[in-house]
Amino acid sequence: MSFMSSTDNSANGAQRLCDALLESGVDTCFANPGTSEMHFVGALDARPRMRCILGLAEGVVTGAADGYGRMADRPAATLLHLGPGLANGLSNLHNARRARTPLVNVVGEHATDHLALDPPLASDIDSLAAPMSNWVRRAVPGGDVGHDAAEAVAAARDTPGIATLVLPADVAWSPAPGGPLPAAAPPAADAPAGDRLAAAARAIAAGPGTLLLLGGRALRAAPALLAQRLAAATGAGVLAETFNARIERGTGRAPIAKLPYPVALSTEVLPRYERIVLIGAERPVAFFAYPGKPGLLYPEGCEIVPLVDPGSEALPALEALAERLALGDVPAAAPAPEPPPDDAPLTPDIAAGLVARHLPEDAVVVDESVTSGRAFFAESMAGPRHDYLQLTGGSIGIGLPLSAGAAVACPGRRVVTLQADGSAMYSLQALWTQARERLDVTTVIFSNRSYAILKGEMANVGLENYGDAAARMMSLDDPALDWCALARGHGVEAARAATAGQLGDLLRQSFRQGGPFLIEACLG
Amino acid sequence: MSFMSSTDNSANGAQRLCDALLESGVDTCFANPGTSEMHFVGALDARPRMRCILGLAEGVVTGAADGYGRMADRPAATLLHLGPGLANGLSNLHNARRARTPLVNVVGEHATDHLALDPPLASDIDSLAAPMSNWVRRAVPGGDVGHDAAEAVAAARDTPGIATLVLPADVAWSPAPGGPLPAAAPPAADAPAGDRLAAAARAIAAGPGTLLLLGGRALRAAPALLAQRLAAATGAGVLAETFNARIERGTGRAPIAKLPYPVALSTEVLPRYERIVLIGAERPVAFFAYPGKPGLLYPEGCEIVPLVDPGSEALPALEALAERLALGDVPAAAPAPEPPPDDAPLTPDIAAGLVARHLPEDAVVVDESVTSGRAFFAESMAGPRHDYLQLTGGSIGIGLPLSAGAAVACPGRRVVTLQADGSAMYSLQALWTQARERLDVTTVIFSNRSYAILKGEMANVGLENYGDAAARMMSLDDPALDWCALARGHGVEAARAATAGQLGDLLRQSFRQGGPFLIEACLG
Repeated sequence: MSFMSSTDNSANGAQRLCDALLESGVDTCFANPGTSEMHFVGALDARPRMRCILGLAEGVVTGAADGYGRMADRPAATLLHLGPGLANGLSNLHNARRARTPLVNVVGEHATDHLALDPPLASDIDSLAAPMSNWVRRAVPGGDVGHDAAEAVAAARDTPGIATLVLPADVAWSPAPGGPLPAAAPPAADAPAGDRLAAAARAIAAGPGTLLLLGGRALRAAPALLAQRLAAATGAGVLAETFNARIERGTGRAPIAKLPYPVALSTEVLPRYERIVLIGAERPVAFFAYPGKPGLLYPEGCEIVPLVDPGSEALPALEALAERLALGDVPAAAPAPEPPPDDAPLTPDIAAGLVARHLPEDAVVVDESVTSGRAFFAESMAGPRHDYLQLTGGSIGIGLPLSAGAAVACPGRRVVTLQADGSAMYSLQALWTQARERLDVTTVIFSNRSYAILKGEMANVGLENYGDAAARMMSLDDPALDWCALARGHGVEAARAATAGQLGDLLRQSFRQGGPFLIEACLG
Repeated sequence: MSFMSSTDNSANGAQRLCDALLESGVDTCFANPGTSEMHFVGALDARPRMRCILGLAEGVVTGAADGYGRMADRPAATLLHLGPGLANGLSNLHNARRARTPLVNVVGEHATDHLALDPPLASDIDSLAAPMSNWVRRAVPGGDVGHDAAEAVAAARDTPGIATLVLPADVAWSPAPGGPLPAAAPPAADAPAGDRLAAAARAIAAGPGTLLLLGGRALRAAPALLAQRLAAATGAGVLAETFNARIERGTGRAPIAKLPYPVALSTEVLPRYERIVLIGAERPVAFFAYPGKPGLLYPEGCEIVPLVDPGSEALPALEALAERLALGDVPAAAPAPEPPPDDAPLTPDIAAGLVARHLPEDAVVVDESVTSGRAFFAESMAGPRHDYLQLTGGSIGIGLPLSAGAAVACPGRRVVTLQADGSAMYSLQALWTQARERLDVTTVIFSNRSYAILKGEMANVGLENYGDAAARMMSLDDPALDWCALARGHGVEAARAATAGQLGDLLRQSFRQGGPFLIEACLG
């Protein structure tokens, strides 16, 4: 190390903060700074180990930090400008919180004395931060901002979740003598208590009436494989939650299906079971309430057996169970269907299937295709190994930033993004960051020119017939978005595909060349 | 009226809400709905008087509602989806709050029972709403959501400010029998108490040592003219605040300068005065704190004389003063300088001056040019009448949405937007709404490919010399944004200007044809 915060007594608060982040293992910062963050920006020049990546809107910054944290398994920092800058990043922080991603926000604040004057950019940052943060602290003049930073990293890593540190400008610019930082050791991952293990073992032994519901870290390769082998030995069922931060899947891994999103389907699946073992998963609840439909997706009387809490390591529990119970064989994944002819017009299923078919080895797949890409999941089950990242909190507009952050965390791996057009529009500025950082991201825009999911939701809430005024709130075709122009405007190469052959060619082309590429898949 | 909410007993909550908004004078709704807002969307079909305008990101929705409220002098509604949808709109709500714009947010929420299950999209909407709202209420099952809506409109109009009504889905879908709504009469605008008037009259009579600082509604044509004539009679100074919601200006109106933004300049201007009369303005404070620089921009000992509170009507106070004091002549505005030759390369000053020179009669000017467009204000002083709207809260990214909302409020008037490129990127999706609604907006992008203001702020905070890592956080030229491609991608016609002649030609072309047009002014 060319610096040592613990002995640098000439540092200001911003430098001390930056050093403490580095010492705590945070070396990537997604940023959209303003005046109150200039001292942090100034600190970067002397700290080349801190990679600072600019986003042109704060939803890009926080969504990218989520993608980074999911793939790196350690937090990135964000750098945000005052209350409004944080506010712009909150919706993707909401998704990150639901994904239990480790992430440290640094939010600049007015100098302490200045805040009392209520200048135009002042707002209640604490009230804004609380809903989307697991930990919030305000650095204070005379305190040790290095300590604050180290504790923020520990909170983000150990919860895991969102830690937000508010940094007043006078703390950033005032002298901040160094000192030792708290130890950075993560807590050990233990197996659950014996009674939890015993209850889960009994449930699994009961066979077909039991469902293992996997979420969080249980969907990494090793624990998921153990869970499926445990279930296979007794005939118990295995499912992943509907929305997952990261699933390690493909050849050699557990071919686990997801609990379907539509309430009509999920409430068909779950009544088959008399008990549900939760392994890193929450109990299954409906995404939305609909008039006359249930909120809990499992029948009354179904026993909930918690084994691993959401956010905790799952492997120790599954290894402990594997010592007590038999292991069966992993079922074979269903083979992919026949490929479509090259001149087949693109439908959502054909386009999603083609992405599965062309997936390169060890890709990171980001799926914010919403209604369009559902065929991908089944058709990629038997394909090459990949990580699969989803929208976890339901706040659409994370796909493009999440992909950028995943690519920063995983150099050398191709990121492939299945992206709905309506969702993409919330954070399309992420394309510029993909271009600036030369990130290996292939984005497939599923261009159906509508909020297609809302058309289904109108029926779900009981509004089967609606007129033009309502339809106009769900249609994006007047005018149509030109995704190739939008991509080029951000500096990203792009092309359009209308047939299966064209989409296949463009996918292959994008994987051969370095850097980002966008394909507008025009759906009929 | 083709409907009458007070007698419609078959309505659901969403319909009742919509009817109550209409009855309270709110007939424009900027929206980005989701599942929890589907009943509101469904209500639109039977209520053609409610104009509902889709934005593809929530910052567009709230920024447009701000522009509408500033020009219509009555609130538009927004329709936002749960906590994350509100969060995305908060930064422009912050600007609207600082502009004291009347605005009613309708924020959909999970059904009351469902919220208890903590579904993925749940968050603490009240905590998010509070910092950027003057009034927050949560509609409850069994309550009267029509009453809630009418009170929200009254709060937005009378404060004036931001009223946020949280609408649980079960309130929206449950029967909501009608009933009479609270009266919609706005409060009368009275002159201030006699002692305030007397103190202000004494201060104005004292002459050159007195500054009249105008803000809010004092910058409408009639009160501003009176203020300037009162000052002219005694030699008192007159200035507008640095950032203003709306100034009515141009030929026949008061040629009032603004308090300059840079602290170095504003602290040169204010020490000339021994007393400052606040007419709809706040006491002048620095936008940011800088090490060793003052937070209050006026010298210790300067007397602050409050006459009209921010947000209040200013005309009654000025009329009362005009009865007591003499009125002088309005000074002539400085004539515009000589036009540049057609082949002059565009500089910020040349481009801003050309916009002033070509301004059509009765335009609405939206200025988010930040560092680039400062020449516009002086050079348009003697030009045609226009309204001039600024960024009030310092949260950059409002220009394009504000323009869309102003155009909706002012059919038949051309909106001309002076727009910095870095700021534009936060809410460029507003271009699509401009295209969909065929709004007469001419956007001039001041393309300097940087966060130019931050380069100045580095010096202000004492960081005169910085290296590549810091510079990279303030530069947007790798890759360069192609604004013509970005505009066309959103369905807006666009062209590029590099010389004075090209910019003049494109401005004239855009004014002749209907609908939106974007000019990328490439600054050397």
